[in-house]
Amino acid sequence: MDKLDASQLTVMLLALGILIGGARLLGELARRLHQPAVLGELLAGVILGPTVLGALFPDLQTFLFPTTGPNALVLDAIGSLAIVLFLLVAGIEVDLSIVWKQGRAALKIGILGTIIPFAIGLGCAWLAPTTLGRPEGADLTVFVLFIATAMAISALPVIARILMDLDLYRTDLGMTIVSAAIFNDLVGWTVFALILGLMNEHSSPWSVLSTVLLTLLFAGLVLTLGRWLIHKALPPLQAYAHWPGGVLGFMIAMTLFGAALTEWIGIHAIFGSFLVGTAFGASSHMQERTRTMLDRFVSFVFAPIFFAGIGLKVNFVTHFDPALVLIVLVIACIAKFLGAWLGARWGELPPRERWAVGAAMNVRGAMEIILGVLALQAGVIDERLFVALVVMALLTSAAGGPLMRYFLRRKQPGRLIPLLAPRYFVRELKATTRQEAIAELGTVAGEQAGVDVAEVELLAWNRERVAATGIGNGVALPRARLKGLPSALAIVGISEAGVSFDAPDGLPAHLIVLVLTPQEDPSTQREISADVARRFRDPAAIQRILRTTNFTEFLAQVKMLEG
Amino acid sequence: MDKLDASQLTVMLLALGILIGGARLLGELARRLHQPAVLGELLAGVILGPTVLGALFPDLQTFLFPTTGPNALVLDAIGSLAIVLFLLVAGIEVDLSIVWKQGRAALKIGILGTIIPFAIGLGCAWLAPTTLGRPEGADLTVFVLFIATAMAISALPVIARILMDLDLYRTDLGMTIVSAAIFNDLVGWTVFALILGLMNEHSSPWSVLSTVLLTLLFAGLVLTLGRWLIHKALPPLQAYAHWPGGVLGFMIAMTLFGAALTEWIGIHAIFGSFLVGTAFGASSHMQERTRTMLDRFVSFVFAPIFFAGIGLKVNFVTHFDPALVLIVLVIACIAKFLGAWLGARWGELPPRERWAVGAAMNVRGAMEIILGVLALQAGVIDERLFVALVVMALLTSAAGGPLMRYFLRRKQPGRLIPLLAPRYFVRELKATTRQEAIAELGTVAGEQAGVDVAEVELLAWNRERVAATGIGNGVALPRARLKGLPSALAIVGISEAGVSFDAPDGLPAHLIVLVLTPQEDPSTQREISADVARRFRDPAAIQRILRTTNFTEFLAQVKMLEG
Repeated sequence: MDKLDASQLTVMLLALGILIGGARLLGELARRLHQPAVLGELLAGVILGPTVLGALFPDLQTFLFPTTGPNALVLDAIGSLAIVLFLLVAGIEVDLSIVWKQGRAALKIGILGTIIPFAIGLGCAWLAPTTLGRPEGADLTVFVLFIATAMAISALPVIARILMDLDLYRTDLGMTIVSAAIFNDLVGWTVFALILGLMNEHSSPWSVLSTVLLTLLFAGLVLTLGRWLIHKALPPLQAYAHWPGGVLGFMIAMTLFGAALTEWIGIHAIFGSFLVGTAFGASSHMQERTRTMLDRFVSFVFAPIFFAGIGLKVNFVTHFDPALVLIVLVIACIAKFLGAWLGARWGELPPRERWAVGAAMNVRGAMEIILGVLALQAGVIDERLFVALVVMALLTSAAGGPLMRYFLRRKQPGRLIPLLAPRYFVRELKATTRQEAIAELGTVAGEQAGVDVAEVELLAWNRERVAATGIGNGVALPRARLKGLPSALAIVGISEAGVSFDAPDGLPAHLIVLVLTPQEDPSTQREISADVARRFRDPAAIQRILRTTNFTEFLAQVKMLEG
Repeated sequence: MDKLDASQLTVMLLALGILIGGARLLGELARRLHQPAVLGELLAGVILGPTVLGALFPDLQTFLFPTTGPNALVLDAIGSLAIVLFLLVAGIEVDLSIVWKQGRAALKIGILGTIIPFAIGLGCAWLAPTTLGRPEGADLTVFVLFIATAMAISALPVIARILMDLDLYRTDLGMTIVSAAIFNDLVGWTVFALILGLMNEHSSPWSVLSTVLLTLLFAGLVLTLGRWLIHKALPPLQAYAHWPGGVLGFMIAMTLFGAALTEWIGIHAIFGSFLVGTAFGASSHMQERTRTMLDRFVSFVFAPIFFAGIGLKVNFVTHFDPALVLIVLVIACIAKFLGAWLGARWGELPPRERWAVGAAMNVRGAMEIILGVLALQAGVIDERLFVALVVMALLTSAAGGPLMRYFLRRKQPGRLIPLLAPRYFVRELKATTRQEAIAELGTVAGEQAGVDVAEVELLAWNRERVAATGIGNGVALPRARLKGLPSALAIVGISEAGVSFDAPDGLPAHLIVLVLTPQEDPSTQREISADVARRFRDPAAIQRILRTTNFTEFLAQVKMLEG
């Protein structure tokens, strides 16, 4: 039996550990700098790859991440598996039924938002293939079609996350954008799959035709029969097999079969896993908790391996061509904004929302990078163009949220966590009554933030007398709106004994958060209260909070309540 | 760059899909027959391996699961990764601090429960190595030490699950058993790691000594400094990095480093991941939800790959030697029962509990199988002995629960799910009052189970008048104890409009479960009520129940509440 020997296994474990650890570390750093995590993950690969580590310690780099031999083979296979699972998760987010429910506006944005950038990409690549970095000897038709697709695609998972961050996901506008992006993704990936088929089988027109037909047949079958079968299979599986082991095993097995089938057809494996994902996502029996569990494991363990793996293969410094990066970025943004904006106008959205739709659909995210990797591997594009596509994908993703906020004149909604700080935290309140608790927390606000303590006490107590602020489950939210306060404050106090805040469930409050917001800003207080109420749905949460001994442990517990 | 080509990738995806799907399917079937899931997973491998598929369709078998070439290499590497992660999860369950807390009885059971089977195994293997199936040319010392270890080891994860099933986990007896098993596991694996070291480095006494010293140094460092560092690192990681991405990435990276280090030392990678797991398990900051998430993904995706992979490699039919199986089974059971029983006696446990401790510690589970695989790969034992060890592990695991119940005269505690059935399910109750609801559900009990409807109504209503049975969160549990009822019944009714059962939270009951238990059995009613109350801690659960349209969907939702 062929297997890795002890030293090869050691290198594999070490390499995977460094890859996952490094990618997660830089991914977190990127997030703290308000950048997409994928930027950090790519960067980890760049540092560990030929660009940095290879330049400094070439022997160590080849030892850890060889490009030939069994270890290279295994790392590549694990990377392939990672991306297959990543596309499964992306597919699950695609719920085709909402495209129809969402009606015409979504469809119009979807159509124009796909066709116009596709046409512009097609035109540019046709007129100036060399300027756009067509590699020597690459098939012109395939290259032109690829550029067109690369301009037309968007990144549904990233768009969905931006909409959630802005509290727009469940609004009409949010659902319209999501539906349009779903349409866009489905068309984009189908076209791309066909391009890959076109390329692999350029031997005879017959084989191209058969690949195209098989692809359409497979997509059609998965989206009708497969979708129906999965919808029927989920309830008995969830009822009679172990939860979540039954569903998880079934999903992953089906995904691998779908991936194997599309790979066999001659298009890429990820197309199969994406389609199987959409079939699962379409079922109303697909449980949110199963999806979350899969999403987290894939996003935080598998995806980093894949994205860091890209940096290992490509030298981002030597292949960075500023002119090409700029050209790709400009074409991509203009094409997508124009298409989405025209679609939104056709769909009769108000002017301001048309621009927001453009900003959202312009987000390329991880999808563009995956598309680029496949094209690079297939020899359709060269490293220079690949690097330009990656930069474009990262910039459009980072710009999506801020641009949408700007166009919609929408501020970041109020949340508890960004307001938490050690200096606004009292681990053990002395207060035994509501009024004392408000005074104690108000004093902290006065000392640490310089607000007028007497004013805080008066306003909060007046508010408290009108309606008690105990929200149940051991949580109370006394609050006041202060004139001229620059930004919201939350002062947290914990009381072991509990202070009665007259909650509907009759329980005393152990976690008391004094929320101070600017008087000029009517919505933040409501948003923070809603956020706290959401986090403390579980009655057992307060028990875990009471077991924490310092601010860091407290913050960890509050963060965990998010999921 | 060396990589799998399209057809190799297709085979890899297909093979993995079949392996996971088949292993999960047979694993679920095994569970339904009240057998350990690992039995089904092994069987899936046997069916897909040389034993069955290879005998029927040798070409197909070699195509899917080749023993040489890139695909064999990749499958083996993924299997190694799976087992490294499996041992991480097993290690997390080990909480060393409770061994000391649990005091002398646990330590005494741990010591005698390890030393006596070790000594008996040592003696038997020394006296009759050939009868026990020592392979030609295998080093006698290593073989004897291995048999001794194989007899001494137990399977903490399986023991913990049996104790939980019997509601014994949090009792004094349960914690004593868990502590003893932790001690047992830690000593057993350390000795085994040393044996592996002894074997790999038989070139010079110096290299053996250095392996032993490095192993002890590594174990010492992980369990002191490593444990302390992890304990310190967890709160800031949970507070300031994305949850659970931060912890998950950190855990997996640390595990891979530990595994790489022990593999480099010359003992097996799984020893490193196990030890790193114990360091995480020892920290009180390690959150239950992170552990559960990791556990599920590893148990249901990675572990099946590994266990089914065993069946792929070994022909269980040709290597089944009934005499050897019997000998191994008898020695293993006698040695372990004797050791654990004597330890329990020394620890002054009551007589009945001594036998229960023996039954628990005798459980070998997946750990024995993993030990066997490593010994087989290293050439210490042959296939016949390996098969005998696997059979012994499966039988002792299957017998553990029933034997403990028997020795403790303890019945399976009452649970809601085994009682649920379509014929005891009313999707839409007509009742608008408590009394009507009880009558409506009582009538179903009368029609379907032949109980006396008038008696049920009278008793349940009397009980209801004494104290209302609404437990809050939209759930009510009217109940009655009936003379001569053969076993407990639960009749479930759902009411869209809700029926007031005077719950402490004032909410009307939408899920009404009429619990009927035998009058002679005082505890089942209480156990079922506690089970229902635990499942419906989340106030949102009832909303999901109301969205279900039939019994299967209802059962799926109730099952999901378990996690």
